[in-house]
Amino acid sequence: MNVFIIGIGLIGGSFAKDIKRIMPESKIYGIDANDAHLEEAFTLNLIDVKSNYEDLGLADMVIVSIPVDVLVTELPKILDAVNDDCVVFDGGSTKQLICKQLDNHPKRRNYLAAHPIAGTEFSGPSAAIEGLYEGKTNIICEVEKTAFKLQERALELFQKMGMRIRYMNPEAHDKHIAYVSHLSHISSFMLGKTVIEKEKNERDIFDMAGSGFESTVRLAKSSPAMWAPIFEQNKKNVVETLEEYIQNLEEFKQMLLENDFEGIYNEMNNTNKIKEILNGIPLNKK
Amino acid sequence: MNVFIIGIGLIGGSFAKDIKRIMPESKIYGIDANDAHLEEAFTLNLIDVKSNYEDLGLADMVIVSIPVDVLVTELPKILDAVNDDCVVFDGGSTKQLICKQLDNHPKRRNYLAAHPIAGTEFSGPSAAIEGLYEGKTNIICEVEKTAFKLQERALELFQKMGMRIRYMNPEAHDKHIAYVSHLSHISSFMLGKTVIEKEKNERDIFDMAGSGFESTVRLAKSSPAMWAPIFEQNKKNVVETLEEYIQNLEEFKQMLLENDFEGIYNEMNNTNKIKEILNGIPLNKK
Repeated sequence: MNVFIIGIGLIGGSFAKDIKRIMPESKIYGIDANDAHLEEAFTLNLIDVKSNYEDLGLADMVIVSIPVDVLVTELPKILDAVNDDCVVFDGGSTKQLICKQLDNHPKRRNYLAAHPIAGTEFSGPSAAIEGLYEGKTNIICEVEKTAFKLQERALELFQKMGMRIRYMNPEAHDKHIAYVSHLSHISSFMLGKTVIEKEKNERDIFDMAGSGFESTVRLAKSSPAMWAPIFEQNKKNVVETLEEYIQNLEEFKQMLLENDFEGIYNEMNNTNKIKEILNGIPLNKK
Repeated sequence: MNVFIIGIGLIGGSFAKDIKRIMPESKIYGIDANDAHLEEAFTLNLIDVKSNYEDLGLADMVIVSIPVDVLVTELPKILDAVNDDCVVFDGGSTKQLICKQLDNHPKRRNYLAAHPIAGTEFSGPSAAIEGLYEGKTNIICEVEKTAFKLQERALELFQKMGMRIRYMNPEAHDKHIAYVSHLSHISSFMLGKTVIEKEKNERDIFDMAGSGFESTVRLAKSSPAMWAPIFEQNKKNVVETLEEYIQNLEEFKQMLLENDFEGIYNEMNNTNKIKEILNGIPLNKK
């Protein structure tokens, strides 16, 4: 099987590692807008061939792992270039715009809208991890619009990689993911900003910050090139979650100002049930 | 050496484990307001003797690891009960009130105000971890008010446990720690609250949440009994950090509403430098 990976960083590179293990007979072609990344992916043995769009006709499977703003412009071109028996799927963190965009594409049946919920705060080919997707959820949108045989080909890979599949419509995906992923990134970035602004002398942070701060602010290391377009495409939902979050913070502040420490205790106690919810989340191995 | 640990949970229990390794000849006496915890600590072999305040005269060292509201009422009594050659230190996350409270205590020289910055989101004797404090920062306040010989005894232990010592006045401690610890807890608790409120069907969170959300919301598992009093004692600083955090979130929302995605990119890009800052933080081994 000829597998093309377009965008060979953390997400695409981790796919490459699993595919090499699971389907050793497959040949992996890499395409990347960044020449240095493509070269690095080749050197790291993530890909077998440094390729480009002209070869896309050879593909049996194309994995598109690029920022969501570029997805919108590139996916139509990629679909134009592949043959009728090729499945193309993406890994974008927003699904509504791209599904709408491709709705009338003549090769819509070759596309599977996917969002494997996995990653780390790092990026680039060297960030790729074998087994990154094991036990993780992969959300598939509008599955009925993909040719059955091509669905099967992609799902077989996902299954062998150990992913759990969930089907959802693009609107529901974008709404829920705003809460459990996009909002976490904003809260983390703004926490990092607040502390950096205050602590002009970074040694003070360095010396006093513990593992709790590190955990809460981890996502603030994430790539702006990846995240700014996600916030743009999911603006409506993200603004809504952000308003609710700010409202909750305001209420907490109000309780502090009113010395309502019983109320604060109760808030925290109620939120503690996140423990049980999180117990079900398969954590990143890294 | 007779070591008394008052409050034998995550913090006290982890001290017990290290002390048993480093100073095997010492005898560890446990005191806890919760009988079940005391019994558990004994069964887990964290302590050698289940004890009470009446035995405090035997102590060479007393470690007080209890919520900060109880510290304020208990530390004066503990100091009253110990002999002149005993060092008493605490692990409270606020230092200003307790230092002020003890300033005129006749045994002030027996007290060392400490804050070892280490922990997890779990609590109780079973949460104790050997080596929890290794490589972690321990902030000592008003060191000059502790008898020199008693400073030495405590510092020798801290050193053998692998802690890095930083000296700071209580005001500076409480101000900085509000940014790098207390605010992280509020941002995490309110993130958990926002998501739980929205997602009435918890399966939706469970299925879509990834390791990023888990990391950002981890501190929302923390003990309300420990944290409500910390927010109370450090109210002024915490409100200030919270206001700055809310302000930053508001500005981010405003940029979203104004479609200023270049501004959003720049904000995130600037905050990325948290990477270099965090590289210096020794992470929790757990």
